[in-house]
Amino acid sequence: MQEQQVREAISNVLEQMRQRPIPLGISNRHVHLSASDYQALFPNEPLTVRKELLQPGQYAAEQTVTLSGPKGFLKNVRILGPLRSRTQVEISKTDARSLGVAAPLRLSGQLEQSPGIKLISPYGELSLAQGVIVALRHIHMSPLDALVYGVQQGDRVKVAIAGSGRTTVFDDVAIRVSPQMTLEMHIDTDEANAAGADDPAALIRLVRE
Amino acid sequence: MQEQQVREAISNVLEQMRQRPIPLGISNRHVHLSASDYQALFPNEPLTVRKELLQPGQYAAEQTVTLSGPKGFLKNVRILGPLRSRTQVEISKTDARSLGVAAPLRLSGQLEQSPGIKLISPYGELSLAQGVIVALRHIHMSPLDALVYGVQQGDRVKVAIAGSGRTTVFDDVAIRVSPQMTLEMHIDTDEANAAGADDPAALIRLVRE
Repeated sequence: MQEQQVREAISNVLEQMRQRPIPLGISNRHVHLSASDYQALFPNEPLTVRKELLQPGQYAAEQTVTLSGPKGFLKNVRILGPLRSRTQVEISKTDARSLGVAAPLRLSGQLEQSPGIKLISPYGELSLAQGVIVALRHIHMSPLDALVYGVQQGDRVKVAIAGSGRTTVFDDVAIRVSPQMTLEMHIDTDEANAAGADDPAALIRLVRE
Repeated sequence: MQEQQVREAISNVLEQMRQRPIPLGISNRHVHLSASDYQALFPNEPLTVRKELLQPGQYAAEQTVTLSGPKGFLKNVRILGPLRSRTQVEISKTDARSLGVAAPLRLSGQLEQSPGIKLISPYGELSLAQGVIVALRHIHMSPLDALVYGVQQGDRVKVAIAGSGRTTVFDDVAIRVSPQMTLEMHIDTDEANAAGADDPAALIRLVRE
């Protein structure tokens, strides 16, 4: 086999890998809690798994809280596990308006100058000084996925979602690479609704220019 | 002046007209009522203008209703005037989920096999058998605008919205042409949120391919 043929074979395989549809996760409003904030809200109850998520080790917990803002509240907001170093509340812009909270568009973890909110559990309540954001749409990738797509941590890409009746190209999609991650795009409920991506048959692919 | 120069001058003017940003209207949930349905809900009160809309003759009324669905209700839903031949309720997919109503994605006026809902006014209530839709995103145009863009009634186009942090290209945007219309794109709150178009500086333009 000639070197040229090997190159072509590899190139074909890579192209096929790039053509795979990207799995889509639609993030409903949710809360990540620090151990101490969890302890304050659920003093005598361990965090328990309700449903494993696609990202390894991540899960939706049985426990939920109510978000209470100046203009309204949202009940049954799920806690995602495991517990983290910092508490973070991820909501949609629709939620932000109904709560009356000016949540900025941010990458997960970038909580500087974000507003706070009150969390209410069956056992008590906790007023956060900050931590409420609208998550920037993003794609989780393993380092191998990043190699295949020719992108790296921190890149911004375009993604086409062929949803039912509302096909959309989202620009400003952040790339997040880690060995603990598996290929999955995350968008919020506003974005899923706008793209018809609530249809399970919606097809997700990276737009290459 | 040569014919060639005239052609180029016209072509330049048309191109400049096509480069104008398209005005954007973000449609919050609203209700259009037939005269008889309005009469049933507000028996002794004329429909009054709260705010003129950009489309000639259209206005947001002072009167509002509550939408009541199987899973929840939404208060203070504005009636848009003037009254129409048929009652139509336009909500976002987010609203559809919180009301528990399977509203289909439709062009305005296409109400066949759409679900109903209960409307509640200060004076009474009315159960609609049908009429609840999620409006297909669209651009209103005068016939002159349509000539300038080279599109016609019923076409589907792509529109780029350069919003804050969430730049998006919406495909499946319907073109609606009428002498009573002025250039304006209408999207719902989910779509505006997904594109960062709630930023007044968001720039809207038709994508030509």
